[in-house]
This record gives sequence, C-alpha cells and structure tokens, in this order.
Amino acid sequence: MGCTVQMYEKPKLADPVLIEGLPGIGFVANISALHLVRELNAKRFAEIRSSSFQDFAIAAEGGQARFPVNELYYYEGKRRERDLIILHGNTQALTTFGQYELSGQILDIAQRLGCDYVMTLGGLRVTGKVNTPKLYCAASDPEILNEPLSLGAKIIGGQIFGLAGLLVGLGRLRGMKGLCLLAETPGFYPDASAAREMLRAVCKMLNLDVDLSKLDVAAQVTHDMLRSFGMAIRPTEKGAGREESRFRWLI
Amino acid sequence: MGCTVQMYEKPKLADPVLIEGLPGIGFVANISALHLVRELNAKRFAEIRSSSFQDFAIAAEGGQARFPVNELYYYEGKRRERDLIILHGNTQALTTFGQYELSGQILDIAQRLGCDYVMTLGGLRVTGKVNTPKLYCAASDPEILNEPLSLGAKIIGGQIFGLAGLLVGLGRLRGMKGLCLLAETPGFYPDASAAREMLRAVCKMLNLDVDLSKLDVAAQVTHDMLRSFGMAIRPTEKGAGREESRFRWLI
Amino acid sequence: MGCTVQMYEKPKLADPVLIEGLPGIGFVANISALHLVRELNAKRFAEIRSSSFQDFAIAAEGGQARFPVNELYYYEGKRRERDLIILHGNTQALTTFGQYELSGQILDIAQRLGCDYVMTLGGLRVTGKVNTPKLYCAASDPEILNEPLSLGAKIIGGQIFGLAGLLVGLGRLRGMKGLCLLAETPGFYPDASAAREMLRAVCKMLNLDVDLSKLDVAAQVTHDMLRSFGMAIRPTEKGAGREESRFRWLI
Amino acid sequence: MGCTVQMYEKPKLADPVLIEGLPGIGFVANISALHLVRELNAKRFAEIRSSSFQDFAIAAEGGQARFPVNELYYYEGKRRERDLIILHGNTQALTTFGQYELSGQILDIAQRLGCDYVMTLGGLRVTGKVNTPKLYCAASDPEILNEPLSLGAKIIGGQIFGLAGLLVGLGRLRGMKGLCLLAETPGFYPDASAAREMLRAVCKMLNLDVDLSKLDVAAQVTHDMLRSFGMAIRPTEKGAGREESRFRWLI
Repeated sequence: MGCTVQMYEKPKLADPVLIEGLPGIGFVANISALHLVRELNAKRFAEIRSSSFQDFAIAAEGGQARFPVNELYYYEGKRRERDLIILHGNTQALTTFGQYELSGQILDIAQRLGCDYVMTLGGLRVTGKVNTPKLYCAASDPEILNEPLSLGAKIIGGQIFGLAGLLVGLGRLRGMKGLCLLAETPGFYPDASAAREMLRAVCKMLNLDVDLSKLDVAAQVTHDMLRSFGMAIRPTEKGAGREESRFRWLI
Repeated sequence: MGCTVQMYEKPKLADPVLIEGLPGIGFVANISALHLVRELNAKRFAEIRSSSFQDFAIAAEGGQARFPVNELYYYEGKRRERDLIILHGNTQALTTFGQYELSGQILDIAQRLGCDYVMTLGGLRVTGKVNTPKLYCAASDPEILNEPLSLGAKIIGGQIFGLAGLLVGLGRLRGMKGLCLLAETPGFYPDASAAREMLRAVCKMLNLDVDLSKLDVAAQVTHDMLRSFGMAIRPTEKGAGREESRFRWLI
Repeated sequence: MGCTVQMYEKPKLADPVLIEGLPGIGFVANISALHLVRELNAKRFAEIRSSSFQDFAIAAEGGQARFPVNELYYYEGKRRERDLIILHGNTQALTTFGQYELSGQILDIAQRLGCDYVMTLGGLRVTGKVNTPKLYCAASDPEILNEPLSLGAKIIGGQIFGLAGLLVGLGRLRGMKGLCLLAETPGFYPDASAAREMLRAVCKMLNLDVDLSKLDVAAQVTHDMLRSFGMAIRPTEKGAGREESRFRWLI
Repeated sequence: MGCTVQMYEKPKLADPVLIEGLPGIGFVANISALHLVRELNAKRFAEIRSSSFQDFAIAAEGGQARFPVNELYYYEGKRRERDLIILHGNTQALTTFGQYELSGQILDIAQRLGCDYVMTLGGLRVTGKVNTPKLYCAASDPEILNEPLSLGAKIIGGQIFGLAGLLVGLGRLRGMKGLCLLAETPGFYPDASAAREMLRAVCKMLNLDVDLSKLDVAAQVTHDMLRSFGMAIRPTEKGAGREESRFRWLI
C-alpha cells in the first residue's frame, strides 16, 4: 500500500518551515517536536501510515490500541514568529525504500503548503559525560550555515542517518533549502537536556517564543511512548542495545 | 503480483462482524475460526493468495498438493445471531509490507459487504502452567471495551503482532471499529483450552449459538495442517522454537 | 522492472504440456529439460529476465558474457507424442516475491498457447546410497496421480519448494491441472541417474520417443553451467553446501 | 519512488559510448571515470537518485550535505575521438532489484542519446603483489573482444558483479553491444595504478587524448569521497573488510 495520508485540514501558511522530529538517537528530535507541539498548541492536520512501518498495534493504557504513525502539525506564527509544519511520530520506516517513500510523501505535503525550508533535528552520539550538549550542523547550501554557526554550532563530519538526512537531501532535489541540527547526547535515553540546547537554537533562528521549562514532561511522554513500542529505555548505556537494534535509525 | 483474490460468491449480509482467525501464538485464533466455520457450516466465498506467502506447495495425504492461502467464509446469523465474515487460513504474509497489503485486501472485501466491526483473535504467551486461560482485550475505541471487560477480560499491555494488530489499526483508519481479544496460552502447541475460553466470550458478544464440545477436533486438524506446513509442534516448550522462528507472527 | 519477456515466435501448439526444468535439488529437472530440448530439437521461442535474478554477468569460455535467464522452448509432437513447452534456465528468482512473479509470467505465456497441464520436475534429497532412484508425485487433483502411481511412483509427503511447487499451486488457481514429480537424489551434484528415471516416466506419460543414452552429456553441460554461476559442485556431499546456501531453491 | 532522474540538458552526440565508472573493487572504474571527467572537462547533464541507495546524508567538509547519487556526463569528441557518456557516482544500488532498476534507467537515457555501445570498467581482485596490473575482458559478442585482446587483455573467467555485469547483460537485451574491462587490483584501496592500465586501453580503443599524469589526484578524491561515505580505506588488506561488507558490489 505504500504511504497512506489522511488530511484533516489544509492549513494556510506563510513561508512555513518544516521541522522534522521523529524518533532517533537520544530522541532529541522527538522530544523537541513534541514540546513545540504542546507549548505552541500546534494543530494536527495530517496522519501518514506506511506499509514500511511495523506491523503491530500497541495496547496503551486503558486498552486503547495505538499504531505506528507519523503526524503533521501546523502553527501559525504570532508577530515575528515563523509559521511551522511540525513532523512528529512514533516511528520511522523500517526499510531504506520505505524511508525514501516516506520522505517524498512528507515533502509533497510541505511543498503544497508553500514550504521551501526543511529543518531536521537529531542527536549526535558521544561517549562519556556530556555537560552542556554542543550543537552540530550541516546544510544543503553553505549560506544556510551562517546562522547556526553564529549561535555556536559546529560543523558535522560524517553520516546523517534516517529522515534527518534524507529530507535535506531529497528536499534539495526539489529546490528546497535544508538544515540539519544535531545535539550531543549519550543517546540511550530520551535526552531532555540535549533537546533544551536544540530548542534554544531553533527558537532563536525562527523567532519562536517557547517556554522550555517543561521539557522534562515531553521527555517523559516520549519515554512512555518508546516503552510501549518495545524500545527498552534504561538509565544506563548497557541496558539499551538489543531492543534498539531492530531500528536502523537508532544506529 | 501482490494479492490475488478469487471471489466465488458475493454474500448479502446485515452488519456483519469480521472475525480474524489466522495462525499465531498457540493457534488460538486459527482453532477458533476453524471451529466456527465447522459448527456454523459457514460457506467459503473468497480465497486470497499473496506473493508474500511462502513459495512452496505442500503434499498432503493422498498426494494432493495444498498451497498457502487465506480464505473468507460467511455465515448468516439465525434469530439474534450476528452475521459473520470469518477469516481462516494456513499462513500470514512473510513480510511487513505483505502484511499491510493483505490487511488492506481483507478490509476492502469486508467493507464492500457492509462490515464496520473487526474482531481479531490471538494468543498471549504466558510461562508456567495455565489453568483457566484468562482473556485480554484492546480496542480502537474505549467504549468497545465495555462488553469484554464485563465478561471478565483484562486490558492488554504491550504489542499485538500480525494481522490481529494490523486489522484493528488499519480498520480504524477507515472508520471501522476494532476489538482484539487474546487468550492466555503457553503458545507452543494448538491450544484447544485457550480457544474454548476465547469462543465462550466471542459467542456471548455476538449471540452465537455454538457447541464447543468438539474443539479438540479443530485443534487436531490445525495441528495436522501446521505439521504439513513444516511447523514442528511438540508437546513440550523445548521442542518448538527453531522451526517457528521463520514465522514472525509466531514471535 | 519485474519480469521482461522477449518473444521470438508464437508457436501454434495442440494441448501442450508445460514441463518445468529449472535448477534445483540434484539438478534433476535442469538436466531432464536440457536433454529433452537437445534430443527433441525443441525450439527456443521466449526469454524471461527478472529483476529478482542475480545481478551479475558470467564470463563464459571465449569471453562471451552470459546472464541469468529463463528460456521457453516448444516441441510439436510427432504421431502420438504430446506437444511440449519446455522451461529451462540457469536460475530461479532470489526472493519469494520474485518467484510468484516469475511463475505468473510463465503461466501467462503457457495459457496463451493453450496449455492447461503443468508438469514440474525436481529432486527429493535422500541420504545414503541411491541405487535405482525412486519417483515421488503430488498433484493438484487426485485423478492426475493415477498414471504416475501406475508407473511405480509413490506419494510425496512434505513441502515442494520453488517453481516446482508454485507452478502447480498457481496453475490450479487458473484451472490448470498440475503434477509434480520428484526423483530421489543425494542432491549435491547434477544427477544423471535420477534424471534418467525421471525421463523414463515423463516419456511414458507423454508418449515421447526420446533416446536416454546421452544423459551424461546433459549432466555435464549442466555441471559446467553451474560452475560458471558460482555453484561449486563437488563429487562428495561435504564439498557442496556453503556456495549453494545463497540459493533457496537448493535447500 | 524508484529512480528519480533530473536532466539538466539534452546533449547531441554522435554514436556515443557509455562508460560505466561506479564504485567497485579497487575503485578502478570510479577513479577512471572521474579522471576522464576532469581531464576532458566533461559536462554533467543528469543526476539519478534511487530509493535503493543509502538513506543517509554525508556532511562533507564545510558542512555542506552530500547525498548518494549517480551522475551522467557527456563529452563531444575532438577530431577522431569518440563521443562519450560517462557514468560516475558515489554508490550503486543496495539491492538486486535496485540494481536492475538503476541499470534500466541508465540504458534508457543512453539509448535516447543514440548510444549502442556500453563499456563497463572494474577491478579484478588478486592476492599478492601486483606489478603491472593486467587487463581482462568479456563481451556481449565475440567480435567485440578482438580489440581488447589485441591490446593484451585476457579473457575473464567467472562472475562480473554489479552494474559492470548488468549493464552489459541488459544492454544486450536491447541490442546494444557491451564490453567489460577489469584491471587486476588488490582491491582494498583506490588503486591509481590499476586505473592507469585501464585508461591506457580505453583511450586507445576510443581514440581519446587524455593525460594520465594526474591519476593520483583522482584516486585521492575518490579516497576522500569513500571515507565520507563510511567506507574505511586502509593501506593494508586487513584494515578493510568489515565496513565494506555492507556493499555487495565490493564483494
């Protein structure tokens, strides 16, 4: 069946930025996107299912079944704030082919809403203790890097896996600008402090006025979602691993 | 080729319930569906083949070849009984993609026959001795849980693999209600006693008048079918395992 | 690209039998089909490529590149001989999906030529020394078994992998009759003596007048083809194995 | 999404030769193609992406993201030089299916530009020290071998993996001539000296006037590209292996 999209509404946005926030290393993107959705009261306007998602249902608390899904939210910026399309979800696609297909679907929707700038978020796994997580960046075009570099981000060296890399790459093919931001994280639990550094930079770049005090709540919700999806999250690096190995974007 | 459907008849049904009964843990669903088909004398009206099924034939007794297939039966309820569409078969699809495709095909057929309620069955693997198998439930909408809860079922916590989870999940996307019922089972042999508890609840919920005394026969037929499909079924937990590992819905 | 068919000619045949002769256990089918093609001077009328075949070329002797391919030959029977469509090739598809697709393509062609009877050949792996290889049979319908049983064949119990099983199974869905014949073989080298017993039965059933004295030549050609395709064939059971494990129809 | 092609220009060429130069053993083809592009100042006219390429982005020096891609360049020959279509890229497809699809796409483009001759390049892995790398050849038709044989090449025996094999094989199905040239190489690093022997022969055959003195630069650029794509290239045979095993065309 490929991807199935359910559009609940077609928002009218002015030059919106697409912010990617799917599960990945340290769940930095996932927490950040969820926090933006909650604090900005962003509205869900589309759901995407893919036959490359997991073939199971999750029985959440109260017995209501939940399913692998990606969701798109929109936010109409106030004053100087940028309009946003926020991509949140509980999974990425399980296969390379599925990842390309999903990316194409998301970019199709974003472009139809007038978006020409994709900002993907993620974690950069580091060993050892992280005090203040540093930010790293890469972009489709060099001039896009000026702003994150001025905010103290460093240049990424290496591979950017999953939709964080693909959306920038395939977006560029369509003439869309793309920026990928990664925050340092040990990577084996939902990392609120990495998400805090991430959102500080994102909010500055997009003039967003967002309270970051409740990030721990977003991290906890993310943690619970992961748990129900069979990703064991333990407080130590040793505890993770085996369960996660099924998900290639957690490499 | 994807899925190939052969329709032998287009039954006229009133608000039918789709009951899923494919192979899975303890073969609870498989036995239950087969027993319903036999006791209710339900009529086969469609066969589904998929290129995601196994690529082999089985030489059954007498030398007649059999093939991986899913079959749909219908039953026109008498008096207060609900009309039924019963899904039985000797396999699920081998890949995630195939499972989504198969689910879509089945839901297409069910919807065309006026079905808006999917009831999926399965086993919940438990270790140790099971005296009276308990039932567990999850649903697309909370209100659907009232009836199974009133019959003593508990809330499922965790993942529901295979078509038992997918049909509820994808059905909900189409506005269909869905209930998943799991019965406790050690899981390594066709479990007639888990199927008995399952059918007791199903029959109550759908006002079905079904004799449960011959469940052992359905379990034996299921056992023989599994054997010919290369799934070694042994009386002890140790004996299973290796053979089953090829089938992800037996996880 | 799926399957690509090149038709060189559209033969006019009377009630032809499709004989499957692709690589498999003991290469019994492969040798048998090749021998029929050579002795009957059957004419190649179609080539099939599939994107589920191996992605390599083989540099054969003299530096000419050869490729994974399935070929169809036809033979117009003389006197009481049946008309034949012979399927020969140097590979089967590498995936389950590819096997279904390839089978569908072959059956499409056969049906367009008026064929409603599929005869698939193969080897049945046995351990220990084989003196006179016995034949085994399974069929889509019980009455088809009468003739092979009268020739001394026994009933197969178990799974029939690869196109030998699929063509019978998918053919039946189209209303075609199907017979699968397997000959006992140690299975780890191209087995001319198993092919001899196979062809004795096939020729009797189809009234074919074929000299079986040069079967060793067909076995040697098959051996050389296998070698160039990277399947190491050794005179002992120990020597095979590792190389073959890439090919699921050699299980 | 399969393959996506971006055509920047439709060149007018006279009887052009398609030269394949994708990553493979010893990166002989990759270096050779890159060197031709640079020395001949060939012009890029098309980019191909495939959902069978890797799903990641690479942050190259300076923070600009790069992506898995195949590129086509053209060169209008001067005087007696043949017109060229040069295929260069940083990857092949990851699956057999993807390789067939990619090959079909490339041949489509080449044929539309009037090409009926495909020349694929590659490395032939040899153990031990290589002094002057020897060339090996295979072809779709025996007469094509006359020229490379007269230049001292030997006949290849065995399998030709990846697009080097597929383009010749699928090209022949379209009536295109094909020649595959392999140069001896230890295979575990970008091998400029193998590329030198390769280009000497290619230039003679196509009357190309190319300076081969800067081949080390092309090898170094190839080396850096590989590094950023996560293929660890070490000066010793031992160092390679693990990283490369993900890429089947490096077998």
